[in-house]
Amino acid sequence: MGVVVQEIERASPETIKGLAACGVATVHEAQGRIGLLASYMRPIYPGACVGASAVTILAPPCDNWMVHVAIEQVEAGDILVLATTSPSDAGYFGDLLATSMQTRGGVGLIIDAGVRDIRDLTQMQFPVWSKAVCAQGTVKETLGSVNIPIVCAGTLINPGDVMIADDDGVCVVRREDAAEVLEKAQARLANEEEKRKLLASGELGLDMYEMRERLAQKGLKYV
Amino acid sequence: MGVVVQEIERASPETIKGLAACGVATVHEAQGRIGLLASYMRPIYPGACVGASAVTILAPPCDNWMVHVAIEQVEAGDILVLATTSPSDAGYFGDLLATSMQTRGGVGLIIDAGVRDIRDLTQMQFPVWSKAVCAQGTVKETLGSVNIPIVCAGTLINPGDVMIADDDGVCVVRREDAAEVLEKAQARLANEEEKRKLLASGELGLDMYEMRERLAQKGLKYV
Amino acid sequence: MGVVVQEIERASPETIKGLAACGVATVHEAQGRIGLLASYMRPIYPGACVGASAVTILAPPCDNWMVHVAIEQVEAGDILVLATTSPSDAGYFGDLLATSMQTRGGVGLIIDAGVRDIRDLTQMQFPVWSKAVCAQGTVKETLGSVNIPIVCAGTLINPGDVMIADDDGVCVVRREDAAEVLEKAQARLANEEEKRKLLASGELGLDMYEMRERLAQKGLKYV
Amino acid sequence: MGVVVQEIERASPETIKGLAACGVATVHEAQGRIGLLASYMRPIYPGACVGASAVTILAPPCDNWMVHVAIEQVEAGDILVLATTSPSDAGYFGDLLATSMQTRGGVGLIIDAGVRDIRDLTQMQFPVWSKAVCAQGTVKETLGSVNIPIVCAGTLINPGDVMIADDDGVCVVRREDAAEVLEKAQARLANEEEKRKLLASGELGLDMYEMRERLAQKGLKYV
Amino acid sequence: MGVVVQEIERASPETIKGLAACGVATVHEAQGRIGLLASYMRPIYPGACVGASAVTILAPPCDNWMVHVAIEQVEAGDILVLATTSPSDAGYFGDLLATSMQTRGGVGLIIDAGVRDIRDLTQMQFPVWSKAVCAQGTVKETLGSVNIPIVCAGTLINPGDVMIADDDGVCVVRREDAAEVLEKAQARLANEEEKRKLLASGELGLDMYEMRERLAQKGLKYV
Amino acid sequence: MGVVVQEIERASPETIKGLAACGVATVHEAQGRIGLLASYMRPIYPGACVGASAVTILAPPCDNWMVHVAIEQVEAGDILVLATTSPSDAGYFGDLLATSMQTRGGVGLIIDAGVRDIRDLTQMQFPVWSKAVCAQGTVKETLGSVNIPIVCAGTLINPGDVMIADDDGVCVVRREDAAEVLEKAQARLANEEEKRKLLASGELGLDMYEMRERLAQKGLKYV
Repeated sequence: MGVVVQEIERASPETIKGLAACGVATVHEAQGRIGLLASYMRPIYPGACVGASAVTILAPPCDNWMVHVAIEQVEAGDILVLATTSPSDAGYFGDLLATSMQTRGGVGLIIDAGVRDIRDLTQMQFPVWSKAVCAQGTVKETLGSVNIPIVCAGTLINPGDVMIADDDGVCVVRREDAAEVLEKAQARLANEEEKRKLLASGELGLDMYEMRERLAQKGLKYV
Repeated sequence: MGVVVQEIERASPETIKGLAACGVATVHEAQGRIGLLASYMRPIYPGACVGASAVTILAPPCDNWMVHVAIEQVEAGDILVLATTSPSDAGYFGDLLATSMQTRGGVGLIIDAGVRDIRDLTQMQFPVWSKAVCAQGTVKETLGSVNIPIVCAGTLINPGDVMIADDDGVCVVRREDAAEVLEKAQARLANEEEKRKLLASGELGLDMYEMRERLAQKGLKYV
Repeated sequence: MGVVVQEIERASPETIKGLAACGVATVHEAQGRIGLLASYMRPIYPGACVGASAVTILAPPCDNWMVHVAIEQVEAGDILVLATTSPSDAGYFGDLLATSMQTRGGVGLIIDAGVRDIRDLTQMQFPVWSKAVCAQGTVKETLGSVNIPIVCAGTLINPGDVMIADDDGVCVVRREDAAEVLEKAQARLANEEEKRKLLASGELGLDMYEMRERLAQKGLKYV
Repeated sequence: MGVVVQEIERASPETIKGLAACGVATVHEAQGRIGLLASYMRPIYPGACVGASAVTILAPPCDNWMVHVAIEQVEAGDILVLATTSPSDAGYFGDLLATSMQTRGGVGLIIDAGVRDIRDLTQMQFPVWSKAVCAQGTVKETLGSVNIPIVCAGTLINPGDVMIADDDGVCVVRREDAAEVLEKAQARLANEEEKRKLLASGELGLDMYEMRERLAQKGLKYV
Repeated sequence: MGVVVQEIERASPETIKGLAACGVATVHEAQGRIGLLASYMRPIYPGACVGASAVTILAPPCDNWMVHVAIEQVEAGDILVLATTSPSDAGYFGDLLATSMQTRGGVGLIIDAGVRDIRDLTQMQFPVWSKAVCAQGTVKETLGSVNIPIVCAGTLINPGDVMIADDDGVCVVRREDAAEVLEKAQARLANEEEKRKLLASGELGLDMYEMRERLAQKGLKYV
Repeated sequence: MGVVVQEIERASPETIKGLAACGVATVHEAQGRIGLLASYMRPIYPGACVGASAVTILAPPCDNWMVHVAIEQVEAGDILVLATTSPSDAGYFGDLLATSMQTRGGVGLIIDAGVRDIRDLTQMQFPVWSKAVCAQGTVKETLGSVNIPIVCAGTLINPGDVMIADDDGVCVVRREDAAEVLEKAQARLANEEEKRKLLASGELGLDMYEMRERLAQKGLKYV
C-alpha cells in the first residue's frame, strides 16, 4: 500500500482507437472470451463508447484520496480504473474530479464503487461505468496505491492495459496483446457483416453455422 | 431435454394486439393479479411495449445453441422467452440473432439471463427484457429444449402463451384465457378513465372508493 | 399502527426550493455527510430534481391502502415517502394516484418498494425514486400509519422533513435544520465554482487542497 | 385465487421413502438434472433429510392465513410447500403451526419466504427449508389457494409431487415419474459405490471416465 | 459526528431478563409487530439468546475506532449495536474486543457490518448478530458517534433501548415501553401454551381461531 | 484456455502449517490487510481450518470437466481453488471427487460456485469454502485451464500460493512471501496474547493503544 508508479507503458493510440470502434462484445470474443468485468458495472448514461489506457487505483472504502493522486498520473487518452480494498458503494467521484480529468485529457472512469453528480457528468459527456450511483461523501485519511495491478469487478487490470467500455459493459485487453486482439476483432467484424447479410436474407443460423448434423448427433428430437 | 416442439397454438393477432395496448399493469390486474415475471426483468431501452406469442427456450447456462434452434420455430408476431437450467447472466443474444428474428417477423426477447449489443438492438428497435446486460460469450455444446413449458423469472410460461411487456416489466397471459382477459382489461381501462377524471377534478380516492367507513372499522385514528 | 397525524410542520418554500437547487450531493455534504437514503433508490426517469416536504407512510407489504389515506394529508409542495413494515417490491403506486397527487400539488414519491405505470408517470413528469419497478397489484386490507417517523431505505424520515432527490439519489434534511443547511450548501456551491475554475485551468487537486505534505507524512511513495 | 383442492394423488410411501434415501443430488441427476429449487433455499438446521408429498400453498406476501387452511389437507407423510404471490421474507410459520403439522403426521415445510421459532423447530426436529429466517409476524386478510400448481423458488410444483430435501437443498419429482426416478436413482447409487471404491484406490476420474482422448481432441494442452 | 453520550438510561435488569426469556418472535408480536431488524442479521452460532441494553455506535465504513470508544461506555448487561455511515462488510470486531467487552460485563454485539474471529467468539460464548462474517481489517482514522440514535439494519435504535436477539434474529424494544411489552409478551406466552396443547390434541387452527366463517365470506372455495 | 500447467512451486510444508495455525484474520493483518477473498465465501461446516498450496482451476459455468483434470495435478497438502469464466452456483464437486482428492492427499476445496453432497463431505471432514450449496449437476463439454493465475471471489490467486481458510473465510498468501508473512503473523499472535491479558484485566483499548489524545485532536466530544 502507499505506492504510486509513475511510469507505465501504454498501447498505441491507433490500436486503442481501433479496439474502441469494435466494441466490448467483439473485443471480448476476439480475445477468446476473456477480460470482461462483472455485469453489475453499468454506464451512467447510454451511448458512450471508449477505449483508453488504464491508470489503476486501489482505494480504501469510502476514501477517495488516491483519486487525487492518480489524476496527476493521467495522460491524454487515459481512463481511471478504481478498485476498493473492501466493498463500498460510496461516491468517490463527481464533477470536480471530472473537470480535472478532462483538463488533462482523461476520458472516463471505471469504478467498482459509486459515483455522483450524474447530471453534471452527463452534461460534460464524461462517461463512467460503476457499481452504484451514490452521493455518499468520502474521506481522505488512508493511503492506497496508484498504477499497481488491481482486481476490479472480478477481473485483473494492469496499469496501461486497454479498457474498452460501452453499453454492454467493460472489457480489458492486456496492453501487450492489444495489437493482435485488434486484428482478430476487425476480422471478426468483417465476418459478422457477411453473416448479418445472410441472416437478413432469411438464412437460418442453423444452416449458416451448419449446426443441424451435430444437433442430431447430440440427440435433439423434433416432435 | 433435447426436444423441439414444432407445432404450437397461438392466440389471435387481434387479441394479442389488444392486450399489448392495455399494457402490463392493466393486464396483470385484469386477470386477477397473476402472471407477472420477477421485477428484475428490465427493458434494455425505455418505451417499448409488445404483445407476442411465446416461443419458449430452456437453455443450459452460458450456452445459446438452442436460440438458433428456436428461431426456426418463430413465426411473425412471436417473441422468444428463454429460461436457463441453472442461473446465468451470460450474453446469449446479440444483434446477429436479432437480425434473424426480425427477418422472420419475431418481435423481441424475454430472457432470464444476459443480452449484449445493446446499442445495436436499440437502433434496430428490437426490444429485450432481461436479468442482465452482459457481453459474456456463450458456447454451443449442450442441448436444451424449445417450446416446452418453462419457468422464466419465477413464472410458468407455456409455448404460445401471450407475453405482454413494457416499461413496467413482463406479464404472461395463458393463451386460452387471452380473449377473456382482453375483455376484462379493456373494461378496466374504460373504468380507469372515469376514475382519472374524478381524481383530476380533486375527488379523493378515499371518497371515490368509499374507504372511510371500512378504515374507521379497522380502527384508523386521526390525530 | 393505524394512526394519521393531520398537522405537520413544514420548512419554508424558499428554503426547500433553495435546497433543491443545490442538489443531493451538495446538500448531503453541507450537512456533514448524513441523510442519504440507500443507493438502491433510483429515479424512474433521468433529469428530475425535487425538493419537498415529506408526508410519510408506513405501509404493510403489498398493501397500498395508506397511500389513499396519505394523499388527503398532502399539501402543495409535499412528496410522499413510503416505507414498508416488511420488505416488498410490489407496485403500490401508478398513474391514478399520481393524478390525484398532482391535483393536490404533490410533487413526487419516494418509496422503498415498487412503482408501476412508468410510461405514464414519465409523460406526466411525476418523478418517483423507488427500490423497484413492478406491476404487482396491491390490496387494501391492513392499516398502517401516516405522518409518523419512518425508516425509509435505511434512513430516518420525520413528517415535514425536507426531501431532496435527483439523479444522484435521495437525501433528507431535518425540517428544523433546513435553513442552516441551505446556507452551508450555498456557500459550498460558491466555493465549488472557484475550485472548478482552478481545476479547469490545470491546477491539480493535490495542490489546490495542499495534500502533498500529508500524503508524504502518511508514507506515500512515488516509484 | 381462493381455491382449496381437497383430493390430491400421492406417490406410494415406499417410493417416497426410497427417493429420500437417495438424497437430493442423486435424485436430481437420476431424473436428468431437473427439478432443483433455487440454491437460496437452505435448511434451518443441518442433517435433516426428508421425502414427502407436496401440499402446495400460494399465499399473499406477509399473510399466512392459507397455511391454516392447508394444514387441514395434510395427511401423514405430507410436506407443506409455500410460494408467495409477491416476494416476502416474513415469518409465515413457527412452532404452533409445526405442532399442528406433527400432530397430523406432516413432516416439514418448504417455503419461499421466512420462518421463525428456529430454536423450537430444531428441538422438535421439524425440518424447514426456507429463503429466510425472520420473526416478522403475518396477517390473515387475503385469500390464496391450496393444492394448485405453484412456482416455488423457480421450480414448478404440483400438489402430490414428491419433495426430496436435505443439506444440499430441495428437489421435486413429478408424482407420476417417481417410481421410475427411484429405479434410476438406485442404479446410480450402486454405480457410485463402485466408482467410490475405484477412486479411493487411487484411480483418477480422467481414467475411470475415459476422458483423456476427448480432452485431447478438444485441444487441452499440458505444459 | 464525533459525539459520545456518557449517560444513558436503561430498563430494569428484571424487565430485560424477562423479555429475553420470551424470545424475539414473541416480543415482536407483543409490541404490535414492530421493532425487527432486517432478516440478513444472523447469529454467528446457533442457540444464543440475549436481552441487553443498547450502547449504540455510528461508525464510518471499515473504521472501528468508535468501538474502542464505546466499550468504555459499556456497563454490565449492555450490548453494542453498530451501524455504519455507508455500507460495509468489514470485520470491525474480534476476540480482543470481545475479551474487553466480557471483562466489563458486556453481553454481545449487533452489527450491520462484519465480524471476525468466529471460532474464538464461539468458544468464548460471546454472541454476535451480523450482516457478514469477514476478516477484513479496519482502520482508526475517522470519528463516528457513541450513544446517539442510529438506524441499524433498517430499524431505529436509541441508546438504552432493549435489544432481544436469538436464532430468529434481532428485535428492539423502546426502553420506556419495555415493562409494558414484557407484560404483553408473557400473556402471549401463556396463551400460546394453551394453543399448543389444543393443536397437539388435533384441533385445527381453522377451528381454534374460528376462521371458517370469515374464509367463506371472503370467498374461499373447496373443490 | 485449455492449458494445464504441470509443474508449480509450493511453499514449504512448515511455513504452510505455521500460517494455518495463525488463522485467516491474523495472516490477513500480518501481510498488510490484503489477500482476503470476498465474504460470501463460507465454509460448509464450522470448525475447519486449513493451510494448503493452491492448485487453480478456471472452469466454464456449470462444467466441472477441469476438476477431473486438476486432481491429477494435486499433491499431498494441496487444495483446489476454482473460479468460473462466468458466474455460476452449480454443484461442481461432491463426495466422489472428494474421495479422489483425499486419496491423493488433497485437503479441501475453495470454489467461487456451488458444491453438493454436504452431508458426506462433512462426514469425510473434507472442508469446502464456497459461494453456494447447490445440487445442480454439471456437464463435461468445454475446456478451461489448470494452474494458471485466476481471480477467485475478487482476489488474484496464483498456482502454488498458500491458501488459509477457516471460519472467518479465506485468505491467500503469495508463495514467495509466505515465510515472511509467517514471521509477522507469529509476532502478531504473541503481541495479541499480551493485549488479551491486559484487556482481560480491565484495561481499555483506549488506553492500551493510547487513543485518547488523537481522538481529542480529531474533535471527539464527550457529553
